[in-house]
Order: sequence, then structure tokens, then C-alpha cells
Amino acid sequence: MTQDKESVSAEDSLIARYFKPLATDRGALGLVDDAAILPSLGDDIVVTTDAVVEGVHYLATDPPDTVARKALRVNLSDLAAKGATPAGFVLTLALRSKEDAWLRPFADALGEDSRTFACPLLGGDTVSTPGPQMVSITAFGRVPQGRMVGRTGARPGDLILVTGTIGDAALGLDVLTGGAVTAALASDPAAREALVSRYRVPQPRNVLAQAVRDHASAAMDVSDGLAGDLTKLCAASGVSATVDVASVPLSAVAAGLIARDAVCAETLLAGGDDYEVLCTVPPAQSDALIAAGRAVGLAVTAIGTIVAGHERPRFFDGQGQELALKRLSYSHF
Amino acid sequence: MTQDKESVSAEDSLIARYFKPLATDRGALGLVDDAAILPSLGDDIVVTTDAVVEGVHYLATDPPDTVARKALRVNLSDLAAKGATPAGFVLTLALRSKEDAWLRPFADALGEDSRTFACPLLGGDTVSTPGPQMVSITAFGRVPQGRMVGRTGARPGDLILVTGTIGDAALGLDVLTGGAVTAALASDPAAREALVSRYRVPQPRNVLAQAVRDHASAAMDVSDGLAGDLTKLCAASGVSATVDVASVPLSAVAAGLIARDAVCAETLLAGGDDYEVLCTVPPAQSDALIAAGRAVGLAVTAIGTIVAGHERPRFFDGQGQELALKRLSYSHF
Repeated sequence: MTQDKESVSAEDSLIARYFKPLATDRGALGLVDDAAILPSLGDDIVVTTDAVVEGVHYLATDPPDTVARKALRVNLSDLAAKGATPAGFVLTLALRSKEDAWLRPFADALGEDSRTFACPLLGGDTVSTPGPQMVSITAFGRVPQGRMVGRTGARPGDLILVTGTIGDAALGLDVLTGGAVTAALASDPAAREALVSRYRVPQPRNVLAQAVRDHASAAMDVSDGLAGDLTKLCAASGVSATVDVASVPLSAVAAGLIARDAVCAETLLAGGDDYEVLCTVPPAQSDALIAAGRAVGLAVTAIGTIVAGHERPRFFDGQGQELALKRLSYSHF
Repeated sequence: MTQDKESVSAEDSLIARYFKPLATDRGALGLVDDAAILPSLGDDIVVTTDAVVEGVHYLATDPPDTVARKALRVNLSDLAAKGATPAGFVLTLALRSKEDAWLRPFADALGEDSRTFACPLLGGDTVSTPGPQMVSITAFGRVPQGRMVGRTGARPGDLILVTGTIGDAALGLDVLTGGAVTAALASDPAAREALVSRYRVPQPRNVLAQAVRDHASAAMDVSDGLAGDLTKLCAASGVSATVDVASVPLSAVAAGLIARDAVCAETLLAGGDDYEVLCTVPPAQSDALIAAGRAVGLAVTAIGTIVAGHERPRFFDGQGQELALKRLSYSHF
């Protein structure tokens, strides 16, 4: 709690130096106002908010550029799963350190991602904290009126589709924390690196947003673990599901670890941090969604079927044996 | 970093227990989706974000109900100054303690304020932190297209108006931290209480939002100190200002402290946490804004004039002597 006029300009100049270059949208008003303007354009505005805390959602040793990318991308991933086109974001940064060595790569990476995903910074707040740093982002997207893809529309008979591969990020966290995977991949630094990268820098599937909006009956992104997230989607829709675990798309590294029993399926299915799109699609439309993925180089894979009922989704292995998952999700609580 | 299925439902049940009752808007989707919907209705959406950190923006000893009210109201105050009607908010809560004794009064007060100000909870994120608690709110308002009141429209000749009274919150913080005001008001617990209440629970001026939109050429809320905030407004508009300090509206308690030299004008002018509306108004429209305030029982007072130039605003006492302010603002940096 300092009180002097120098310190006011310290916050202002921090914003001017690091974040004004990111505020390219007219509605950001150059970050000199108390508020930003998001013109309606007749669309519905989709709002999502996700925070990452040092030591909880990212490691204190994670490079600042990956912290920035992860903070924005976990929100972009929500927009993708809702079928929304990114429109901008606001940033709250709780800083312990205000060192250029941290802020410069953080702001540069955030700016790069905001351009890549056409999601400009609209405003924000920087506050001091004695505690762990925290990056809280609220992101906005647009969908035509009434067209946001929710969680409640899954119907018995719908196919369950998922983008990309599942479980790599959980394996990456295991590597970073010196778990079993580290030893299993002792002789393969490139594989370890690839997994760590999946943990630190999610690949939100915004290229597929319009196809999700056009074809999915329900969707969400996989952030807390495929098993737990599918359970939530089914609960919201009042349905159940069966999943063919052998169909769940794995990277070559993850498949290799499974093949030699270095990790179990549960680690991948309940691991979290995937940031892939999980959606349900009427069978007649699944080919169209898969083709839309193929057109942008993104695998979209059917992993199961929505069924009537209220019990938790059931997972079956290649032999038709049901897997009893001891946990469904990664959780911070 | 716990990993078990109980803990997933712990976060979900925390949200269901405390925050779902606040999510009364259809667009909140009952807080079971990853995102909320803000229908456009043809308006511009005004976005503002402000965070409060324990030990920085509020005291660890502040009651949880006042923390909730302050966190929401500092954002409502921004909307009021922008001429916007509240439309909803999203909440990020970084919690160290998940005790009912803290969360229950926090959520109840937040719910009460969200009803009072017609600003429903649309979504949010709860995260664990080992550090100080933090409440980050992004609030949304509506204005007809192109009608948000900015900081850049002040013109020479415009009158400078401010709502309510200035400086009470700064005096309240002084009381809470055992400063000089505590001794000066040793025999007046009611006065101390009133000042503390101004610090802990701002009174955002949303009732005046439409009149601000109709009459003000520029506006912002006073959050970091009247002197510093006016300086920012003038800089954004490319103008300067003269302020008649004797006209700055003070509460009876603040005026009494000034009269007996217990505090100096600078404490009030640079103190911060006022959450009053500061605006500039063409002279022909000032009576209309003052009358709009009177109609809702809110004092609106002319304190000076916008003048041409780029120097910092100048403050004059009742004798026409210029005050040399050593500081302009309260700042957390």
C-alpha cells in the first residue's frame, strides 16, 4: 500500500509499455478508459472466464510465455467448444514481480496469441499481490442469435466425438513433476518435450468452431479429464453414454506408454488439461464434422454413443470389458 | 493439487451451494455450462474489470459481506460512469479458505447486491490459492450503440461535476489502519463507523447512469483519488482544468476534520476509493444533470471548469491560492 504520485504512473506505464500494443481493437479505447466497448453486431455474446494460479494451474518454473499462452488458450478453447468466434478478452494480472524479465516475454506471447486467434485485448486490471501470481482472463465470442452450443442437447443415439488426442497433457505434467513417465521415457527427450509442450501450451480448436456450431447437439472442451467432462455433459443433458476406450485417440507416445503398461488408461481418461473439443453429434452429421476437421488437418474421432439413462457414462476396453475408473477428473479442490 | 473424483464434485457443489442461487439470468445457463450468453439486443456491451486482493484492496479483517459488496460495486461504479445499464457479471474467486463461515456471508451479500443493482451472476471460476484471497469481477453493461461516455470528450468551458462527497473512504481507511483520524474522532464512534462504511461499501451511482449518458461530455468514476483521476481524464481529452477546492463536496465529518486542521485537503483530494462519478458537462446542460441527481436524492456539485492547455489540473483554495499537491492519487504500485 504505497501512496505517491510516482506509483500511479508506475501502473499506467506498465500498462502502456506491455499491454497497449495488444489493444488493437477500437473498442479497447487504447486502454485509457475504465471500460471497453463490444459492439453487438446483432450477435449473441458468449462469455467465458478462467483463471490460472501459479503453483496450482502452472508451475512457478514454467516460462512466462507459456503461462500467457495457456491463460488465453484455456479461454479460447471454451469459445471453440461453444461454436463461438473470438471477439476479445480482458485480463486481470495479480503480480508479485513486476520485472521486465517476466513481463516482457509474457506480454509478447500474449500479443502473438491474440493476433493468431484474432482475439484482441480489450481491457484489464493489474494488481499487486504478495502471494502467488495469477492470471484471470474473461474472453468474449460471437455466435448468431440463439446458436451457442450448450451442454444440454445430447440425445440417445448421438455419437460422441473428440478432437486431437487425449492424455498427452497429463503425461506432460507427470514429466514436469518427475512422475513415472519421466523414467519410462528416460531415453526419449523429444517425447518428453512434446508431452510437456501439450501441458504448457494447449492447442485450442477454434478452427473447428463453426463446424461444431453447425453439427453438434452438445459440446464442451475437455479441461478436467475426458471421463469427468463427459460425465458432466451427460448429466446436463439427462443422458448416459458408452465409450469404447480403444477408440479414444492417443498420440504415438501415449499409445506406446499404454502398450508397455507404463501408464494406465485412467491416467489419460481422467488426466485433464487436454483442451480438446468433446461433442455429441446426430449420426447423420458425424461425417460432416469429421470432414470439417480433416479439411483443417485436425483429427475428429468417434469414441462412443449417447444412450438413455441417468447412470454415469460407462467405459469399455477392446474386449468389451467395463473399466472401473477410480477417478474421473483432475481437480484443484 | 489433489486428484480424486470427490474433489471435482467439491468444486461443483461449492458453486451449486453458494453461487447458483445468484445466477438468475437465463444467459447464465444455471452455471452448468462453460460459458454464458449475453444477448445483444442491439446495444453496445460495455465491459469493465476490477479485482480486489486481500491485504491490498481490502483488509484481511474486513467482513466477507463487505468484501463481496466492494468487489461488485467497484465494477458497478465503472458502469455508472460510462452511462451503462448493468447487464451481469462473471466472478473469479481465488480462495484459500473454503469455509462456510466466509463463503456464506460473501455469497449472500453478493446475491443481495446483484438483485439491488439488477446485475445477475452469469458465470465464473473458483480456484484454490495458497496466497491471499482475491475476487476478480468482470461486469457488463448496455448502452445504445455508440453512446458509451468516454474520457476523451471534455472541452474547454465544460463544467466539472462530481456526485456525493469526496474523501470519506480515505478517512475510513485511515481509521481502520489506526491513523491520525482515529485520534481526531476518538470521542465520535458513529463518525468513525460512517467513514469505515464508506471505505468498505462504496455506493455506486448507477441511478444517475442515464443522465450521465444524456449530458456528460466525458466521465469516469473516482477510484484512485479525485486529483489523479481528473488528471487522467484531462490527459485523455487533451485539456486542462481549474478546480475550486472550496466547492469540492465534503461530508459533515470530513468538513469538520478539515476545519480543525485534523486532516489536510490533499488527504481528501488524493485519497481514493470514493466511487463517485466525475464528469464534464457543457454549461447549458449542467442544470439538467444536477436536477437528475436531485430527483434521486443524490448531490451533484460543480467543482471547476475545463480549460485549454495540456498542463496538469490546478487546484485553488477559497482565497484563490493555488494548492501544490504532493500526490494526486492512491496507488497499489
